[in-house]
Amino acid sequence: MSIAVIITDRNTDELCQLLASQLPEVQIQQWPDIPHPETVELAVLWDHPAGITQHMPKLKAVISMGAGMDHIEQDQHVSGHIKQARIVTPALQQNMAQYVLQHVLAFHRHGQAYRIQQSNQQWQVLEKNQPMPVIGFLGLGALGAFVADRCVDLGFKTIAWTQQQKHPEHPCFHGAEGLQKVCEGSDYLVVLLPLNPQTKHIINRELLSWCGQNLVLINVARGAHVDEAALLQILDSGGIKAAVLDVFQQEPLPAEHPFWQHPKITITPHSSSRSDVMQTAQQVVGYYRGLMKQS
Amino acid sequence: MSIAVIITDRNTDELCQLLASQLPEVQIQQWPDIPHPETVELAVLWDHPAGITQHMPKLKAVISMGAGMDHIEQDQHVSGHIKQARIVTPALQQNMAQYVLQHVLAFHRHGQAYRIQQSNQQWQVLEKNQPMPVIGFLGLGALGAFVADRCVDLGFKTIAWTQQQKHPEHPCFHGAEGLQKVCEGSDYLVVLLPLNPQTKHIINRELLSWCGQNLVLINVARGAHVDEAALLQILDSGGIKAAVLDVFQQEPLPAEHPFWQHPKITITPHSSSRSDVMQTAQQVVGYYRGLMKQS
Repeated sequence: MSIAVIITDRNTDELCQLLASQLPEVQIQQWPDIPHPETVELAVLWDHPAGITQHMPKLKAVISMGAGMDHIEQDQHVSGHIKQARIVTPALQQNMAQYVLQHVLAFHRHGQAYRIQQSNQQWQVLEKNQPMPVIGFLGLGALGAFVADRCVDLGFKTIAWTQQQKHPEHPCFHGAEGLQKVCEGSDYLVVLLPLNPQTKHIINRELLSWCGQNLVLINVARGAHVDEAALLQILDSGGIKAAVLDVFQQEPLPAEHPFWQHPKITITPHSSSRSDVMQTAQQVVGYYRGLMKQS
Repeated sequence: MSIAVIITDRNTDELCQLLASQLPEVQIQQWPDIPHPETVELAVLWDHPAGITQHMPKLKAVISMGAGMDHIEQDQHVSGHIKQARIVTPALQQNMAQYVLQHVLAFHRHGQAYRIQQSNQQWQVLEKNQPMPVIGFLGLGALGAFVADRCVDLGFKTIAWTQQQKHPEHPCFHGAEGLQKVCEGSDYLVVLLPLNPQTKHIINRELLSWCGQNLVLINVARGAHVDEAALLQILDSGGIKAAVLDVFQQEPLPAEHPFWQHPKITITPHSSSRSDVMQTAQQVVGYYRGLMKQS
């Protein structure tokens, strides 16, 4: 009985120690040291080397370390009979809500303008008696719905583009027409979709042309959701106001990339949200125990 | 039958129109034009000229336009038999939570450091796997409790200094010892107390000496809560990290005031929170109707 932790972008010592102490009967194999792939029943994956699971004949299930499943779906060696799950911890949801609200509030509450006023010793209230802005969500899954709820708590209006109407508190629109409606009706557009062939480059020239001049785009999903050339073009022509980007086609963002110095783009290094290691271990342990009971 | 709207710091046309349309039988008198003080039964006050109510023999009640009652309590002409109320709308609570979260998140999620990294084309995650910070509240009333709830929703820990333990989800401390405990245990300290002789200059040299070097002070109550000289001294000596100030001893903050150019101080022009005019009118109308029923 063995669990393989194959997470290549961070140190996993603490996670592996927690798993080992909570599952003393299970061998925990920690990437890059996977001496016994033939015993692995569960693999916890993030940024894993494609094909690494093909030498695991006993593999029953894989768990994604985050909300995104694209790295697993793109791996043809994770065959259909292997169960797929993902870790969405409260911390992951909360950190994502923090990130989105940090940037929405910085714009909505005039963070930069007040900094400039302060440097000029200028005392002037910038908040006007205007309707609260609309925060549009592309995707309203485990992360999107949590973030949207927190926006409503703070008085913001929300709309969303989803496959079904499942959230009475967030008006939802569907299909191609619905996508246009959400873009037209939003002041902020938060991308929290899964990445798949249907959503790749969904933020393209046509979609951006539906957005208003005051729209702020916030991409916290995957870099490949955005046609980067189309985004640059619309920003340069004044078609939308700004973009806050946590993810990029190529990460780390190459030094010569035009996004870095663009005055309308805010860049963070794929830092929007991480799971808490204690909560993660708890979920992996719970999933593993459920898996063993079934078999 | 008459209502006087005596709000001196903003335009009240819309509020008065809403009141007039919802209470057609009532004369709405709008400051500075109060032709019939002798008919006024209810006065809606904010920054009112002290003593203006002394010519209103039929005055039954006064309403503060915000959470603060200090302007009314300081007016000796508002005698004990006159009822006192205040308007705390959902918008007032939400706007206050937005303001506090905007600044907490800007620090906690490294807003400034990421801006500097971007200008240097630097890709480095600054979020560490650390315990979530503690947001301490001085005062947990209609505004403080709402803001504290929103902080918990986002994963922050909270503690508070209150008169009673009334909020099971926010550990509360009381008295002089309790005040010290909250200061020592907080990473952010949010002042949302009423202003009275007991709380004037509560943020003084002694209290600030209890705070940790990484503490960020956020004052969204009244300028007189803070001993401004003591605050400058502790910031200059590195005793606390930063201060976010929306209120000041003198407003507008005088041009020569040392706060303006202080690198550790963020200044906003008493803009943290305003009520929504529709919600305000609704509450004034409801209060007026209740008042008339009682008499």
